[in-house]
Amino acid sequence: MDNYIEIIGFIAAVLTTAAFLPQVYKTWKTKDVSALSLPMLLMFFIGVLGWLIYGVLIDSPSMIFANAITLVSSFLLVYYKIKYQK
Amino acid sequence: MDNYIEIIGFIAAVLTTAAFLPQVYKTWKTKDVSALSLPMLLMFFIGVLGWLIYGVLIDSPSMIFANAITLVSSFLLVYYKIKYQK
Repeated sequence: MDNYIEIIGFIAAVLTTAAFLPQVYKTWKTKDVSALSLPMLLMFFIGVLGWLIYGVLIDSPSMIFANAITLVSSFLLVYYKIKYQK
Repeated sequence: MDNYIEIIGFIAAVLTTAAFLPQVYKTWKTKDVSALSLPMLLMFFIGVLGWLIYGVLIDSPSMIFANAITLVSSFLLVYYKIKYQK
């Protein structure tokens, strides 16, 4: 029972995480951060940190997995935004 | 105890959902969908649907709230992409 729930969570984790990675890759390749807004990125970063803490507290492997990866990639976007912003 | 967990989840939900809405608004205003990739949008949409189902199964109010809103907004992006794509 619990296993099939985590399978759904894991599929969701892979899909939403994978959909986000091309943005990180594109920003890294092009150094073009003009379309990204720093307040939005910071909001998103803090939000993902919140989900990660929530995932740990409710003991959800799928949420910990997804949000750990997304936390690193959204941190990279914040870093790129600050570094490459003109 | 459970209440403070849901407060963290709810803050996370508001932050990540709010960070996503300007993208939907911008796409709706500009009709510019060139930067959006349909396979990515569909992946994201299905992923969010997965998170919503997961949230229902593990009985998480924060996840149901966040993913219901994000499901609607990512559906709108898919719709705009198909409608406005040249």
